Amino acid sequence: MPDAAKGLTVLSKKQYEEHLPTLRAELIQAQSELRDSGVSVVIIISGVDGAGKGEVVHRLSEWLDPRGIDTQAFWQLSDEEKERPPFWRFWKILPARGRIAILVGSWYTEPIVARVYNRISAQAYDAALRRIVRFEQMLAQDGTLILKVALHLSKKDQRKRLKDLEQKPNTHWRVLPSDWTHHKLYDSFTDAAHRSIQQTSTPMAPWLTINANDRRYRDFAVGSTLLECLRKRLNQVPHASRVEASARYVGLQKGQASILGTVDLTQTLSSARYRKQLAKYQAKLNRLIWAASERGIASVILFEGWDAAGKGSCIRRITEAMDPRLYRLIPVAAPTDEERVHHYLWRFWRHIPRAGRMTLFDRSWYGRVLVERVERFATRAEWTRAYSEIRDFESQLADHGIVLAKFWIHISKEEQLQRFKRREEVAYKRHKITSEDWRNRRKWAAYETAVNDMVAETSIATSPWTLVAGNDKKFARIQILKSVCQRLEAAL
Amino acid sequence: MPDAAKGLTVLSKKQYEEHLPTLRAELIQAQSELRDSGVSVVIIISGVDGAGKGEVVHRLSEWLDPRGIDTQAFWQLSDEEKERPPFWRFWKILPARGRIAILVGSWYTEPIVARVYNRISAQAYDAALRRIVRFEQMLAQDGTLILKVALHLSKKDQRKRLKDLEQKPNTHWRVLPSDWTHHKLYDSFTDAAHRSIQQTSTPMAPWLTINANDRRYRDFAVGSTLLECLRKRLNQVPHASRVEASARYVGLQKGQASILGTVDLTQTLSSARYRKQLAKYQAKLNRLIWAASERGIASVILFEGWDAAGKGSCIRRITEAMDPRLYRLIPVAAPTDEERVHHYLWRFWRHIPRAGRMTLFDRSWYGRVLVERVERFATRAEWTRAYSEIRDFESQLADHGIVLAKFWIHISKEEQLQRFKRREEVAYKRHKITSEDWRNRRKWAAYETAVNDMVAETSIATSPWTLVAGNDKKFARIQILKSVCQRLEAAL
Repeated sequence: MPDAAKGLTVLSKKQYEEHLPTLRAELIQAQSELRDSGVSVVIIISGVDGAGKGEVVHRLSEWLDPRGIDTQAFWQLSDEEKERPPFWRFWKILPARGRIAILVGSWYTEPIVARVYNRISAQAYDAALRRIVRFEQMLAQDGTLILKVALHLSKKDQRKRLKDLEQKPNTHWRVLPSDWTHHKLYDSFTDAAHRSIQQTSTPMAPWLTINANDRRYRDFAVGSTLLECLRKRLNQVPHASRVEASARYVGLQKGQASILGTVDLTQTLSSARYRKQLAKYQAKLNRLIWAASERGIASVILFEGWDAAGKGSCIRRITEAMDPRLYRLIPVAAPTDEERVHHYLWRFWRHIPRAGRMTLFDRSWYGRVLVERVERFATRAEWTRAYSEIRDFESQLADHGIVLAKFWIHISKEEQLQRFKRREEVAYKRHKITSEDWRNRRKWAAYETAVNDMVAETSIATSPWTLVAGNDKKFARIQILKSVCQRLEAAL
Repeated sequence: MPDAAKGLTVLSKKQYEEHLPTLRAELIQAQSELRDSGVSVVIIISGVDGAGKGEVVHRLSEWLDPRGIDTQAFWQLSDEEKERPPFWRFWKILPARGRIAILVGSWYTEPIVARVYNRISAQAYDAALRRIVRFEQMLAQDGTLILKVALHLSKKDQRKRLKDLEQKPNTHWRVLPSDWTHHKLYDSFTDAAHRSIQQTSTPMAPWLTINANDRRYRDFAVGSTLLECLRKRLNQVPHASRVEASARYVGLQKGQASILGTVDLTQTLSSARYRKQLAKYQAKLNRLIWAASERGIASVILFEGWDAAGKGSCIRRITEAMDPRLYRLIPVAAPTDEERVHHYLWRFWRHIPRAGRMTLFDRSWYGRVLVERVERFATRAEWTRAYSEIRDFESQLADHGIVLAKFWIHISKEEQLQRFKRREEVAYKRHKITSEDWRNRRKWAAYETAVNDMVAETSIATSPWTLVAGNDKKFARIQILKSVCQRLEAAL
């Protein structure tokens, strides 16, 4: 801010015009450095009606290079949005690294409105705010700069602003009927907003209250605050998530009982019994999935397991029993570049099914704590915090009523060797076995530790892991089919 | 196919098992070559109920590497889909280069069903089929291999198949009530399907009718047909769109009147008049956009123009007048890699607004016939056929009731020079002017030809070009605001 304006909340036209060119030049410079920094920016513009949220957004898009900005305003939910957990619509629009998202309306809007109209209790409101804190923390740790601006206007000033706007022929259209409704609820809105500011102002995602009485002051203050935060963030090299590499993680220790060790790999099923049970459970699954579809119950089934554990053939036994309109199979391979420039969970949120449908993931978000941990694609800080990020993610699915089943298909190291060899012998199976599989096999012990930690950290009541005895393929297929049926049945 | 089976439509178990390993190995091999070929594959599996569409899909996902396949089944439209032109949902799922999409249900389903239930006339049906031909041609020219399989089953055999399935406890669930309804309409369905096969079998996207009486024959025939088409396509190097480089295009010739030359660049507006009109038309636009929102009328406004023509500032005068919830601004820059591996129109289809909303494009799909033509990023064959592709695209928007306004902001070469110089003098504007702008400027004549051709080729009744006199910024802004208002008003 211009020195003369410090402590004041007005800015003369002269001051404004004197300092604006520098501010704009510096903003542009910072934005250009941002582009290659790996940092993404989320700016939330909130405040009472009449405070000028829209004007601030237009000012920012004038001052910044609009090619690097996405302005997002939230309104009625589409049915596709209604059918997914509330944060789905926000994940969809999170900015890629190097880009800025300006949000008018945000994850705060719905909880605040629900509280003001007394649709949720104070406790539920606080719980919603805690979820927001965790969400923002997760983004910040991933390198997102979060700037939350609350434009402040007293009740008296709000009335005056709305009246002024209404009286001038050029601006009367800016006032909506809902603005006056909200004006009457000014105190309730302010109470709820204050509570949210108090509960969610964290060092990683602070709230900045800016007085909106004077337009020039307001715009300049938002611009210079943004500049300050950008500069600070860009000078932080390496960024937050890299520097907390000292984070400690104590997983299962040598000598402690291995969770995988509890799986009885000697279990088998005769061919005759297999055929009978396969028919029985496929028919049952078919009935259940149609019932779930009618009831609007969505489900997510994910498969992890050792290479050659038979994920593909288990998945086929499930999909064979279902109408292709009811499910989607997502094989998880290397991320695309759009996926790579977002938080690692972004690519999975994309595929959360709508009501009454199923998504099957062949490998999943657990790659973060398996291959990315073992191969050191993720830092220690990244994969250790992934456990709680994943718990949070899955609890959002559960809260929304989505059935989640997670399978780790276990086989012994000897069985894997046999299968690798057999695959290499059959021409049409040879592509399934690459040098990478052999490399992974040499890291069996490291993966075993990672799997044990994963199961220990992420077996929560609403989404437990099912460890599948995979040495006998027939046994494994039936165990999985049965288990999926049970989970669906319990939800119906 | 095994020699012994040629001409027959059954395959013994022995023949099947003898030849399957080779087929599978060759399919896997072809799929692995496909990955880096720049070719994408669309397989449509259609046919009467009971013919085993689902079984064929499962067989293909068993034989191919599932990581390279997306199976897509279409069903009820979501509201997001209903609010867009019918092809939107298909664009969303078009496979990336190197990948295979297997479709159960497709762009054929809705026209066929509509025809069977007499919701559309024979003429409307044929028109729908012609649109499909153009769509498939466009994909094929872009390097997509399209394979359309019609599984055939006689009425008698269909009845028998459904009865058989119903009687066995393992399979009775495969028969849906709708299957019997459709059985009664067998003849109507077959008539409509035959007509579609007749009208849409093109060399670029042929239909293959496969007898589905014998399961082994059916699956083997689909697999070996796919293999044959893949092999043929992969051996075609360079691919179709590259070899028709001999395509000729006769645009506007030297000496012919230039369309841009008709723009009167001397038009100006005084500051006083500008302020008055700005207020007037912004207020009007605000009313209109709310009315359009209530009526569910969507609009697309796109801006093209010389570098420094003032696109950004014109766009801001429009967005300032609108509630941010009602519009999205899409600045078009280099495509992401997900965009790059699809048809060039794919990235624009993504942003088609839902009912009652507006999308503004700062630059657009016309890049294909402007910068991509001039800089030779697109081959002559590619940019010349782009005119009709774009006409097709825009007529789909029009048919869906979407208001489309297209602006070319024109300035003189001298005016551009002045603006370039001014921009270089102002610190916060300097980023707007790069060496690329100076390079483009040297190609003014080539761009002028491209613009003239573009306007001549794509000024159709439902989406004419508006040429804006941009030397006076104030005049340009009002001309655009006025024009957007007129277009919206006409649609309301």
